[in-house]
Order: sequence, then C-alpha cells, then structure tokens
Amino acid sequence: MEKSSISIQLTSSKKPKPQSDELAFGRVFTDHMFVMDYSVEENWHSPRIVPYQAIAMEPAAMVYHYGQTVFEGLKAYLTKEGKVLLFRPEKNMERLNKSNDRLCIPRVDEEFVLEALKQLITVDKEWIPEKEGTSLYIRPFIISTESYLGVAPSKTYKLIIILSPVGSYYKEGIAPVKIAVESEFVRAVAGGTGTAKTAGNYASSLKAQEVAEASGFSQVLWLDGLEKKYIEEVGSMNIFFKINGEIITPALNGSILEGVTRNSVLQLLKHWGLPVTERKISVEEIAEAHKEGKLEEAFGTGTAAVISPVGELIWKNESLVINNGETGPISKKLYSTITSIQRGDQSDEFGWTTEVSTVEKEKVN
Amino acid sequence: MEKSSISIQLTSSKKPKPQSDELAFGRVFTDHMFVMDYSVEENWHSPRIVPYQAIAMEPAAMVYHYGQTVFEGLKAYLTKEGKVLLFRPEKNMERLNKSNDRLCIPRVDEEFVLEALKQLITVDKEWIPEKEGTSLYIRPFIISTESYLGVAPSKTYKLIIILSPVGSYYKEGIAPVKIAVESEFVRAVAGGTGTAKTAGNYASSLKAQEVAEASGFSQVLWLDGLEKKYIEEVGSMNIFFKINGEIITPALNGSILEGVTRNSVLQLLKHWGLPVTERKISVEEIAEAHKEGKLEEAFGTGTAAVISPVGELIWKNESLVINNGETGPISKKLYSTITSIQRGDQSDEFGWTTEVSTVEKEKVN
Ligand SMILES: Cc1ncc(COP(=O)(O)O)c(C=O)c1O
Ligand SMILES: Cc1ncc(COP(=O)(O)O)c(C=O)c1O
Repeated sequence: MEKSSISIQLTSSKKPKPQSDELAFGRVFTDHMFVMDYSVEENWHSPRIVPYQAIAMEPAAMVYHYGQTVFEGLKAYLTKEGKVLLFRPEKNMERLNKSNDRLCIPRVDEEFVLEALKQLITVDKEWIPEKEGTSLYIRPFIISTESYLGVAPSKTYKLIIILSPVGSYYKEGIAPVKIAVESEFVRAVAGGTGTAKTAGNYASSLKAQEVAEASGFSQVLWLDGLEKKYIEEVGSMNIFFKINGEIITPALNGSILEGVTRNSVLQLLKHWGLPVTERKISVEEIAEAHKEGKLEEAFGTGTAAVISPVGELIWKNESLVINNGETGPISKKLYSTITSIQRGDQSDEFGWTTEVSTVEKEKVN
Repeated sequence: MEKSSISIQLTSSKKPKPQSDELAFGRVFTDHMFVMDYSVEENWHSPRIVPYQAIAMEPAAMVYHYGQTVFEGLKAYLTKEGKVLLFRPEKNMERLNKSNDRLCIPRVDEEFVLEALKQLITVDKEWIPEKEGTSLYIRPFIISTESYLGVAPSKTYKLIIILSPVGSYYKEGIAPVKIAVESEFVRAVAGGTGTAKTAGNYASSLKAQEVAEASGFSQVLWLDGLEKKYIEEVGSMNIFFKINGEIITPALNGSILEGVTRNSVLQLLKHWGLPVTERKISVEEIAEAHKEGKLEEAFGTGTAAVISPVGELIWKNESLVINNGETGPISKKLYSTITSIQRGDQSDEFGWTTEVSTVEKEKVN
C-alpha cells in the first residue's frame, strides 16, 4: 500500500484540549483515529484517518467471544524545538506482528502502519502536550470482527490507532513503588500467550492486581507459572535487580513480554560498561541477597513510567525494603538518559528516535 | 429486579428464517436480543429485549484492549408436543458468576438472567428449529465497556444474550473424530483462567488448533501446562476414557472448565452403576492401556456435540486407534439418553429440564 493511499477525513468539530497539568492516563482521546480493514479477499485495505468515533459491531463479533485481539503502546514526545519524536516505533511494529502470529491474526505491513501512525500524529499534533514528562500515548490495536460463534480465526479484522495525551507518570518526580510477589495467580506459562501483547493476558491479571491493591501495593510481581519460583515481570513492566554489583533481568523464556524499554535499558547498561545478565532468577535468591545486604536496587521498565524504582517487595508477608525505599543511582541515571533522548535533550547515539514528518497539504482531502 | 421490569421492543421487520436442514453453527441470529447495562452507581440496570442489532462502542472500550469478558453457551430444544425445554440452565448461570468472579466482573442475579433468557426465547420461539438434532443455541455474554486505557476492572459493562438456530452437529449420525494431543502449546494452568469461560482462553487455543487442522485432526487434546503430561480437555469439550472397564475423566484441578455435560455424564454413569473415577490421568497411561488393548472407549462431552466419540488419538506421531475407530456402546448410550431427555422423549428423572414459559401478552410494549 502506498503512503498516498491513506484517505483523510477531518473532523468538523474539534474537541477542547485538556490542560497539560490536568492530564490523566488514557481517558482523553484526540480528534482523529486511523482505521484499516482486513478481509480474506482484499487483505488489509481501506486505510483511512477519520474523526474519532464509536464503532458499530455485531453482538456476535468474534472479539467479544473468543478474544482474538492484539495491541501496542508507544509514545510521541514534543521537543523544545517543536519537533515530534517517536521512540523506537519499529520495535513496536515488529512486536505487533509477533503478537499477530501467536493469535492467528494476519500480519500487517510494518512500514505502512508506521507511516499511518505518523500521518495520524501529524493530523493531531496540536494534541501533543508540551510540559516536561507529558507525551502523546499511541495505541494501535487489532480486533477480530467476523460475526460468527465458532472457535476459529476470524476472517475479518479492524486495525485502529487511537491517540491520548498523557500526563507525567510521576507527579512529584520519579518515586519508588511497593510491589507484592504473587504466589497464587499465574499470568502466563511457556506455550501460552505471555510473549504476545493480547487482551487475555491483562484480563487474567486483574484478580491478583485487585488483591494486591487492597493490601496497599501498587503492582504484582509475577512468578513463573510452573514452579512459582522464578521472577517473570510486573503488570506492564519488565523488571531488573542489582545484586552485589551485577544487574540481572529475567531472560526471555517464552512467557514474558519483550519490552522495548527493557531492550533499551540492556543496551545502555552494556554501553556504560556495567555488568548485566539476562538469566533465570528466583525469588529466593532475591530474598537471600536482601538478607545479606546485597540487594542494591530494583526497578521496572516500561513505556508508561520508563523506569519505576521498586522501594519495597512483599513476599509471603516478608517485607524487603530496597535501598532504604529510595530511588537508586542506576534507576535515576537510566530514567534521565532515556527521557532526555526521548525528548531530544540529549544526542541520540543509538539512533532510537524517529522524527514524525508533517503531512503534505495536498494529501488532505 | 422484577420479572416485569424487562422492557420489550419488538422488531418491525422480521428476518427470513433458515431451513432446518440448511443450518450451520453460529452464523444466523434471531430477531431479538436481550441487553442489560452495569454501572457502579446503578448496578445491573435497564434490562431490555430489543431488535437484534449492532452495538456502538468507543474504540477505547476496555474489552478491545484488556479482554475483560465472560460468556456461556446452552441450548433450547423443541419437543414433539411443541414445548420449549432448557437443559440445566441454572448450571450455566452459576458458571457465569464463577467466571465473573475470576475476571473481576460484577456478579449477576442468576434467577433474573435466567428469567430474561426465557422471555427472550419466548419472543423468538418461532426461530427454534424442529428437526431432530437441531436446537436454538443461546449465548449470554458480558463485555467491559468503559472507555479507558488502563489495566484495571472496567466500571461499566453490558450483558447481552443472543440466540442462533443451529443444525445437527452430526450430519450423518454420531461419528468419531480424530484428535491430536498437543505437546507444544498450553491452554491453561492452575492460577490462570482455565476454569472460567472467558475469551482469552479461546484466543490462545487458536494456534494449536490451526496446526492440528492442517494435519487433518479436528481438535486438540490439551495437556497440563506444568508437566505436559496429564490430560486436561479438548477445545470445547471435557474428555472421558474407558480403560479396562473403568471410566476415567480428569479431575477438576483448577485449570479445566467444569462442563455441564461432564457433570451430567458423571451422574448418569453412576446412576447406571458403572465404575467411574475423576482423577489425574497421564497421556502415557492412555498409550500404555492402548498397547495392552485395554483402551476401550474415549469420548468428549460438551453442549455443542453432547457426546463426541474419539476414534483416533495422535500423540508424538503415534496413532492410537480406539474401538476400531467406531462409536463405542457407552458413547452411544450416553448420547441417546441425554438427547432424549433434552428433547423430552424420555422421562426426566434427574429434573434436568426446565420448561420455558410463554410471555404474558400485556407485558409486551
Ligand atoms: C506485560 C508487559 N510487560 C512489559 C511491558 C513493557 O514493555 P515496553 O517497554 O515495550 O513498554 C509491557 C508494556 O508494554 C507489558 O504490557
Ligand atoms: C473449554 C471448554 N471445555 C469444556 C466445555 C464443555 O462444557 P459444557 O458441557 O458446559 O458445554 C466447553 C464448552 O462450553 C468449553 O468451552
């Protein structure tokens, strides 16, 4: 599909934009959205930018019954000079197709969807908030739309991209969270869908999250589904530990999501010459290290918070306070480096950012 | 909520009904549907029967992103005397609430939803096909509808019931299927969502199903997610084996769905004085029994097919032909007994059927 094949229908009534400091996460959406349809005969077709609007679907649409859906999450940032930057968006497109493969959803043309995403952002660029820490959250997702009550891959799909201006994750600067190690519920297991970004993984996580929140923890730390022994990841973050000078993150084992932030953190740590290992790590090893005073730092990594220092872990009623419940030096350095690159305040030596080009006026129809 | 609180808006243009012998599964829907909304302030409210129609939802509706949804499946049968019977519908209502609990969806009033279901069937009773083996498939489901991109339970939901006239599962009488034992992909694990009827379980099963179908098998037999050793269930059926006179089905272990048909089969077998056991059973034990000539019968149980004899199991390229690939005597007896009860041809000694009452005319507005 050619870039020029995206039709654009602009809204006739623009919505009021929220103030930068009033922004919550994922509640307000911009004036437009991108939509593209799939059918067996026509493949992915009819790419279009249209006013943000409700979509009408048959009650028998397969997504409601058999949950065949995938999504992505990334952000656009406004630089001081007014440039719009994306952070490693090709990684998200790649992961979208990996998720598609697992869910039996037809692959998309990664370059084309990225181009569509850029055009959509350009159309709604006035919506990108300016304040430090704010950004435009981008949610591409695919849903199965065939009207059929049978457990089989759908024959039709919709890919939709919506945009939401989001506030700073940390209202008062980067701050540590309390996380509960989950010993009852399981998020994913090798052979399941843990490596895909698909709705069911999140639906199944709600129960544990609800229990954890009721006890005053902000998130749960998942253990492997087999032995409930090895660390996997947090709700929507990968996790890192610094033990006795070594930085450790669980290896990609077929059940955790391969985060773009995780990948960037690994590259940065190696670039800085720090010892970093991807391997299996048990919760016992962490408790042991804590007891010996060797658990120096812990932090989550993900698009929403970038770096989320962990100040306290709760495991079987035992509380492991990490770095006196304060943000550690590695967390701070990673956070400031990555956010500076994302906002164009620091030279982008890894080539991680992509500038979003402006739509040429004659393409607007 | 009172029975009388269900408002009814009848369609002004009835659709043509398909012929009994042209019926496929889950493709055609009746003239009406039942809808009810949930909000934190109003609880479940506004129950209504309306013309079958598309529903408009925000693209940020949580169901598309985080998959918080549950469903049920049951059938209504027309007896020779023109009575409409439901088979153990209170079991489905009970399971709906169990699924709700796991998915953090607010519980429904089981009696009220059953009443709504009966009223809906009564409104569309002309749609119930008459031919032997046909029935009206009933699909109650709940979807999260809040417009919010955050991983948390939705604050709003819709419960919808749709109806679909379905043909005989067996076009030429009950016939055995070929089933592949799945050794790579995993459906569910204890601590996950396997015991709930939720979309994600089915989405994750598609890949294995696709591989199996490409090799000529109709379904996959899932093994436990931990050791990939013990039998769990088939795509949408529970499974039974007869080995050396003993009938065995996997025990409810926290990862398989508790089928209504499974429960009914267990009751019938016990009633007939046959030795029946719910326990862990490994695929090795089955292969061993086959080698020794002691694997006498195997069959799946589920609402769609009632009883589905297994003629051949494939495990690691080994083919286990069961009962010469023919339907065994237990399968036959169970099938004819259950379908006879369902269609009112045999006395209902267990009190399994419920007659659907007709709507009182003054309630129609
Ligand atoms: C389950 C899960 N793990 C990890 C991550 C972190 O991934 P990323 O760094 O790409 O945002 C996310 C968020 O996307 C997630 O949903
Ligand atoms: C995963 C799964 N197992 C088993 C069953 C059989 O359950 P039932 O006998 O209630 O139809 C079904 C169908 O509902 C199912 O989806």
